[in-house]
Amino acid sequence: MVKQERAVRTRKSLIRAAAEVFAEEGYAPASLTTISKRAGVSNGALHFHFQTKNELAQAVEDEAVDVVARLVKGTLGPEGGPLQALVDATYGLMGCLSDDIVVRAGFELCGDRARRSGSQLVRHWHQWVEEVLSRAEEEGHLASGVSPEDAAAAIVAVTVGLEVLGGEDPRWFAERRIIGFWSLLLPSLAREHVLLSPRRNAR
Amino acid sequence: MVKQERAVRTRKSLIRAAAEVFAEEGYAPASLTTISKRAGVSNGALHFHFQTKNELAQAVEDEAVDVVARLVKGTLGPEGGPLQALVDATYGLMGCLSDDIVVRAGFELCGDRARRSGSQLVRHWHQWVEEVLSRAEEEGHLASGVSPEDAAAAIVAVTVGLEVLGGEDPRWFAERRIIGFWSLLLPSLAREHVLLSPRRNAR
Repeated sequence: MVKQERAVRTRKSLIRAAAEVFAEEGYAPASLTTISKRAGVSNGALHFHFQTKNELAQAVEDEAVDVVARLVKGTLGPEGGPLQALVDATYGLMGCLSDDIVVRAGFELCGDRARRSGSQLVRHWHQWVEEVLSRAEEEGHLASGVSPEDAAAAIVAVTVGLEVLGGEDPRWFAERRIIGFWSLLLPSLAREHVLLSPRRNAR
Repeated sequence: MVKQERAVRTRKSLIRAAAEVFAEEGYAPASLTTISKRAGVSNGALHFHFQTKNELAQAVEDEAVDVVARLVKGTLGPEGGPLQALVDATYGLMGCLSDDIVVRAGFELCGDRARRSGSQLVRHWHQWVEEVLSRAEEEGHLASGVSPEDAAAAIVAVTVGLEVLGGEDPRWFAERRIIGFWSLLLPSLAREHVLLSPRRNAR
């Protein structure tokens, strides 16, 4: 393995280890030594990549933002409209929160009082949900009287709440939780002619 | 002021100061010295009432549980059915999260990874929401096919999410957020004959 490849790999394992430790212990109590040990690298190697714990948290958040950006982009395919993309994205997000510790830690860092600068991940997610709902409104897919802004706020609050609850008890990440939410929300949100499945693809 | 009264008052101001510091900094970084200074009492007085930070956090949670228990009890009046009580309770809860630092800190402690034993407040709230929805089902107020369990999960997730988001930006506690949520959810949740106002009393 050439030197550069090794550096990329070390950086990746540090981000993953940091995500695990932040999600388990919270940001403030997490120690750089615990993180470097978890990643199987020396403290020196950690400091070569990240000067401070804050930088490491930033890297976790950046990677989580990338994963979520790829996820939401993938839902806007040629078939299905913006509302279907939104529904699919929430399923995808719950899957990520359940399986991808970097995404989970990214959300945890947003709600962590000890880390003030956070919440870019939630901002990105919120912005995307608002955009896709505005598009749905433009295309005549929203029921009359529905405000895209209010609907986006409700959807973002549910996803953030499920993340917090799932961190304590993983059953909150189960598919039935988000199916239950959509089965209550969709009838008020979508115009009658818009056909939606609670989930487009069994993934 | 007799000695006992003074002790009760000191205990109260310690709980309030602890709630403020936990909500601002998170549980792990909060120091007992910061808390006793904020309460205007000596470290000795703090230790007379609370042996550890954990005991103080427990007292914050216990008081938050009491406040929420009184709040939900007050909504189950003779007029209005269980669904109206539920709607009123969510407005009341948002008001508490906005104005009562002890309730806000109680919820924050539930989501704080550094504090493992938490979440009794969310459990109590969840249990009450499920009970009131089961009563609504028994009384024939739920739309057909609605599962009280799924609806309770959605409502709890929204309230927990709004708390986390509001801790960062108080606009999430604004009345229009919860009004927006109910205006989307109620049409699917309630039987047609059940008349509900998004808010019974202008408080």
